[in-house]
Amino acid sequence: MQITPRVREILSWYESDNPGTKGNLARMLMTGKLAGTGKMVILPVDQGFEHGPARSFSVNPAAYDPHYHYQLAIDAGCNAYAAPLGPLEAGASTFAGQIPTILKMNSSNSLSRLKEDADQAVTASIGDALRLGCTAIGFTIYPGSDTAFAQFEEFRELSEEAKSVGLAVVLWSYARGGTLSKQGETAVDVISYAAHMAALLGAHIIKVKPPTGAFELDAAKKAYEAGKIATGSLTERIQDVVRSCFNGRRMVVFSGGETKGDTAALLGEIKEIAAGGATGSIMGRNAFQRPRDEAIKLLSDIMDIYKAAK
Amino acid sequence: MQITPRVREILSWYESDNPGTKGNLARMLMTGKLAGTGKMVILPVDQGFEHGPARSFSVNPAAYDPHYHYQLAIDAGCNAYAAPLGPLEAGASTFAGQIPTILKMNSSNSLSRLKEDADQAVTASIGDALRLGCTAIGFTIYPGSDTAFAQFEEFRELSEEAKSVGLAVVLWSYARGGTLSKQGETAVDVISYAAHMAALLGAHIIKVKPPTGAFELDAAKKAYEAGKIATGSLTERIQDVVRSCFNGRRMVVFSGGETKGDTAALLGEIKEIAAGGATGSIMGRNAFQRPRDEAIKLLSDIMDIYKAAK
Amino acid sequence: MQITPRVREILSWYESDNPGTKGNLARMLMTGKLAGTGKMVILPVDQGFEHGPARSFSVNPAAYDPHYHYQLAIDAGCNAYAAPLGPLEAGASTFAGQIPTILKMNSSNSLSRLKEDADQAVTASIGDALRLGCTAIGFTIYPGSDTAFAQFEEFRELSEEAKSVGLAVVLWSYARGGTLSKQGETAVDVISYAAHMAALLGAHIIKVKPPTGAFELDAAKKAYEAGKIATGSLTERIQDVVRSCFNGRRMVVFSGGETKGDTAALLGEIKEIAAGGATGSIMGRNAFQRPRDEAIKLLSDIMDIYKAAK
Amino acid sequence: MQITPRVREILSWYESDNPGTKGNLARMLMTGKLAGTGKMVILPVDQGFEHGPARSFSVNPAAYDPHYHYQLAIDAGCNAYAAPLGPLEAGASTFAGQIPTILKMNSSNSLSRLKEDADQAVTASIGDALRLGCTAIGFTIYPGSDTAFAQFEEFRELSEEAKSVGLAVVLWSYARGGTLSKQGETAVDVISYAAHMAALLGAHIIKVKPPTGAFELDAAKKAYEAGKIATGSLTERIQDVVRSCFNGRRMVVFSGGETKGDTAALLGEIKEIAAGGATGSIMGRNAFQRPRDEAIKLLSDIMDIYKAAK
Amino acid sequence: MQITPRVREILSWYESDNPGTKGNLARMLMTGKLAGTGKMVILPVDQGFEHGPARSFSVNPAAYDPHYHYQLAIDAGCNAYAAPLGPLEAGASTFAGQIPTILKMNSSNSLSRLKEDADQAVTASIGDALRLGCTAIGFTIYPGSDTAFAQFEEFRELSEEAKSVGLAVVLWSYARGGTLSKQGETAVDVISYAAHMAALLGAHIIKVKPPTGAFELDAAKKAYEAGKIATGSLTERIQDVVRSCFNGRRMVVFSGGETKGDTAALLGEIKEIAAGGATGSIMGRNAFQRPRDEAIKLLSDIMDIYKAAK
Repeated sequence: MQITPRVREILSWYESDNPGTKGNLARMLMTGKLAGTGKMVILPVDQGFEHGPARSFSVNPAAYDPHYHYQLAIDAGCNAYAAPLGPLEAGASTFAGQIPTILKMNSSNSLSRLKEDADQAVTASIGDALRLGCTAIGFTIYPGSDTAFAQFEEFRELSEEAKSVGLAVVLWSYARGGTLSKQGETAVDVISYAAHMAALLGAHIIKVKPPTGAFELDAAKKAYEAGKIATGSLTERIQDVVRSCFNGRRMVVFSGGETKGDTAALLGEIKEIAAGGATGSIMGRNAFQRPRDEAIKLLSDIMDIYKAAK
Repeated sequence: MQITPRVREILSWYESDNPGTKGNLARMLMTGKLAGTGKMVILPVDQGFEHGPARSFSVNPAAYDPHYHYQLAIDAGCNAYAAPLGPLEAGASTFAGQIPTILKMNSSNSLSRLKEDADQAVTASIGDALRLGCTAIGFTIYPGSDTAFAQFEEFRELSEEAKSVGLAVVLWSYARGGTLSKQGETAVDVISYAAHMAALLGAHIIKVKPPTGAFELDAAKKAYEAGKIATGSLTERIQDVVRSCFNGRRMVVFSGGETKGDTAALLGEIKEIAAGGATGSIMGRNAFQRPRDEAIKLLSDIMDIYKAAK
Repeated sequence: MQITPRVREILSWYESDNPGTKGNLARMLMTGKLAGTGKMVILPVDQGFEHGPARSFSVNPAAYDPHYHYQLAIDAGCNAYAAPLGPLEAGASTFAGQIPTILKMNSSNSLSRLKEDADQAVTASIGDALRLGCTAIGFTIYPGSDTAFAQFEEFRELSEEAKSVGLAVVLWSYARGGTLSKQGETAVDVISYAAHMAALLGAHIIKVKPPTGAFELDAAKKAYEAGKIATGSLTERIQDVVRSCFNGRRMVVFSGGETKGDTAALLGEIKEIAAGGATGSIMGRNAFQRPRDEAIKLLSDIMDIYKAAK
Repeated sequence: MQITPRVREILSWYESDNPGTKGNLARMLMTGKLAGTGKMVILPVDQGFEHGPARSFSVNPAAYDPHYHYQLAIDAGCNAYAAPLGPLEAGASTFAGQIPTILKMNSSNSLSRLKEDADQAVTASIGDALRLGCTAIGFTIYPGSDTAFAQFEEFRELSEEAKSVGLAVVLWSYARGGTLSKQGETAVDVISYAAHMAALLGAHIIKVKPPTGAFELDAAKKAYEAGKIATGSLTERIQDVVRSCFNGRRMVVFSGGETKGDTAALLGEIKEIAAGGATGSIMGRNAFQRPRDEAIKLLSDIMDIYKAAK
Repeated sequence: MQITPRVREILSWYESDNPGTKGNLARMLMTGKLAGTGKMVILPVDQGFEHGPARSFSVNPAAYDPHYHYQLAIDAGCNAYAAPLGPLEAGASTFAGQIPTILKMNSSNSLSRLKEDADQAVTASIGDALRLGCTAIGFTIYPGSDTAFAQFEEFRELSEEAKSVGLAVVLWSYARGGTLSKQGETAVDVISYAAHMAALLGAHIIKVKPPTGAFELDAAKKAYEAGKIATGSLTERIQDVVRSCFNGRRMVVFSGGETKGDTAALLGEIKEIAAGGATGSIMGRNAFQRPRDEAIKLLSDIMDIYKAAK
């Protein structure tokens, strides 16, 4: 498998990483329909933890089976499949060598009432990632939460260990808790800030939500205005996020959010995200909560958009 | 001992586990009256910890002696016997090789006033499980409790170590604490969610209570309605739980709850549970709080029901 | 030293323990005036930690000297002497080989204001127990305290290590803290529950206070009534405690409590305790807060009572 | 599975072992056609290491496949199957829970020219034994070899670790090397000495070759004469070996040696071995170097002989 | 158990040892018929390793059973029983608490041809000594052997660990190998030198053979003459050995050697040894190679001699 010049360029950004980690980043970038383009579409399935099985899978009951998601990611040509420990254990042998996997290391759930101190439980180890043949670990931080510092420290330990054994590191950075307003969680200043912190923490791939045009922090707003940073369109806001990730030296992927009935609108949003320079999308509910054929069609359309992006 | 095709199929679900763990799952599935059927009836005796000796054993004083329970489990043809450290230490040598044992690793008690932050103390180690010749470890989590994340993390560590030395892992998943209502603890959405989290955490065998028809979370209720998931009968609710355990790829057993005077009603409930596709029952108080002969008769009747289930 | 049949029988209860631990249990059971009877009277001196030196020793100033207690235990024919680290360090060399010692591993003190979360500090290690030539470790838990679970976990670690190097394990189980009433601390249901938990945690020897006729938990009271467990006399209540310790498979000793001026009443209480099947007494303040001659006389009278018990 | 009185008696000999080890000894003793008799026939397949594949398997090519041996041991009703790491890794998952396995920890081979300093390489760990679900470890020592002391020390470390995690320990004791004559390797004084050393080293099950009537050491010969130890018949010599294993307190099994064409003679030898009080036979080449049907017939006949032995 | 002034004096010699070790020395000194005298008679049974089972036990077949030796040591009133791992494992539970045991940590055997580089294999660990409840470890060095320095270093490690956990240390010091003549092995200068090295290595109790009047080293012989050290009688030579053990500050016991038919001569030798100030005898073959009654009579006579010694 010859690596493309673009992928070689991307790997060159991760200059302090060992060849093992570079190889795993390359595996993801050279897999699926987007192989070699430097773009990525990842299938994440941790909704069962976050929202429970009925809210996650009842609309498409085949998705109760962990094998369904492996096969969906493979058939749709995704770059990787991300999930917690249990589902990977349930399929890692059957699908060994067929698709890069990301072991989601921590998870929250809807039975927890934690709010200002929103948190997650660490439910897997680096040893699990290795024995299950994973390509990367995934971890969520809640910047703004009263327990955020502890989360950063948990991440630091796992990330250091992951890198030392040649794994890649994907960081979900979702501002939440503390004094943050609900609107602030997706405000452009907060999203860019959260993405930047993920880069500062050493993540190889950063996952955030697409930012709105709102602002949460006055001081930040003033700085955007003073710096004349355009945030009027989603594309401009994505550009701000990408810039905040070491001026593009770290890959950043955007979540697809809740299931959207209006596929055209969804694809329109992806186009704006792609135009902003995003590495790609991480598309869970919009994929596995549709019938399989529709999901594959949607993911294919999304990949086409990223392929067309510069 | 030739493994039956059904047991072989069940073992195939645990595809990332090492042969040691598979062997221990096989030992439980090939023991007792239900050997080879893929069904299980387990005798758990941790009530002394949870409710104290008088509430647990005074109604059948022979049960104060730990040897009583070993012998009951053997004579009744149970698949396994589960207990905390002390009772296993008190009988493990006498009954070595006669019945698979599950070392219950953590326990709560009625003198604790913890409610929203319901918790348990870890009272045994994996080294204990090995020196006592146990087949599996057992652990309880309280999803919903304010200390649930810490419990998940305790479980993660013990579970990883147990799997690495070939032990099986049984997870008691009892939603409790936080903002959960008393009714919500056994609501169908909560039970299925708790069972699903146990699967996500990597449990081999999941233990929950039989769900009622109530709902706790509005968002979940809507999902059940939207997905047209039937929850009218206990059998339908059990089906939902089984589906939530990786669409049946993980074994799930249901607790028998408090002692019920009406044996016919109890057996009727078991019939519905069995019809829903449960792996079996874990039957404590309804077993050891009856005279020995009645207990053996009851357990035998329960096993007959599971044997007859498809 | 030939072991008596009764001691051999007692050792057989500890069937999962290694010969080192059995040997140390045997050493205690074959020492002193009660050697070979299967009964024990232990001298514990941790009052200095709990209540300070003046409240502990000023009434009998010779007792300020740690050597005093070693010699008292030896001269009185006790089975063992229990104390914290410092006093054992102060006398272990002088009295090496003369009396089995129990290293009390944790202690509380009267300067602490902890109440609902009553706790103790761990002040010694298993390595200390070995270098000081101890026969057993002693540990206190406060079931009911808001920190009880952490105490159970501390005990678990120390107990596993102690057993692995052949030491015996004595567990002081004193319900306290949380929502427990003062009266409830010695209520019969609570004492039996506390003793039972000590057995479940894997203690070889259990120490509790003599129970009163009070009840703390309504559910427990109902169980006593339903099970027709007699609790009218102290002897009957002791029987309930013994039964709660694996139906007599674990040794249980009762504390002597505060100094009692009325020796006849004290001996009367011991008679009832002995009649209930107790293994013996652990008698601190009533021993070292009397003049030496009186203390030896009292301990001798107590031993005579146990000797005469079946 | 109720243990028979004879198996219970055998387990009582291993009085310092933990319940885990006792349970694994019980598993072997309660498996197969000889279950419960206290006798054992074990299938060992380490000839490939010792003599190479052609000398081991070409006469019965089905035996090149590791699954063949698992199935043979199961179908013939053996108590256990012993093999090095590779073959167990190749079948442990397929046959999980179907037959107790003994992980042979060290092996020699015919390409080595070591003679006086005959040795073996340690090729597996206790962790391997646990993850593969083994019941016991197997180890070979060469008493007499110039490297024997190092072998004893390797064994000591593995044996201590195995016992601490509840595994049983089988010791192949084959005098060889140094100044030992070829005839001396199977001389009765040497075989009994080798068996005795295995017992002294703490083995649970001892494997030696059937002794001839020769003597190797003059001092030993004198002792046999002085003590009037009969060694005229094989049965008498087996009695001497059994006596040398703590007067029968340790199980001793005898190897079947090279393939013998004369089945009647082979069975005659087994009869003499059984009559001498041997625990059983460990029968490799005479089993797997015959066609499967003949092998099963032969093993069955051998088991019948042991069954008939007192 | 009150320690006698003589035992207290002996313990005072071990002034840098922790109370655990002192307690274990006290246990040996306060056990059996010689309890309190400061004298010791120890039963060692490692002949099976050294000379094989027939040469060791055929003359008294009851001695094939490890329980025989435990009971002999107890019934004869010995201070301790010394044996390798296997025999202690085979009886440590049955005889727990009845007799101090010394775990012999290393052993040689007659199948080894090592001469100039005479060596032993280490066949037990300090962990074994603790789990088996031993009072001391025993170790053999061969001063003069080409491998002696490695033996000293093995001893150092085990001895340091043993002392840190409160065990006592007995050192068998048998000059052998290298250029030493056969006669030189028991020459008075060599025995005193070997005993002195044992003291220098930190042994608590030193075991050597009774010295002859021969000399091995010219330089030593000159020193004896210059210093006018009497070596004419065995008593004088024993005095020299005792003097060489820190002028009596370390206990030294003498082996009984091969079985002697002439009991009167044997007792005469013991009288001379006792008169020389020896701590006692370690009497193996002369004990267990006689019928039990004779052995007990002999040991009793020997104890009487030591009792009568100043």
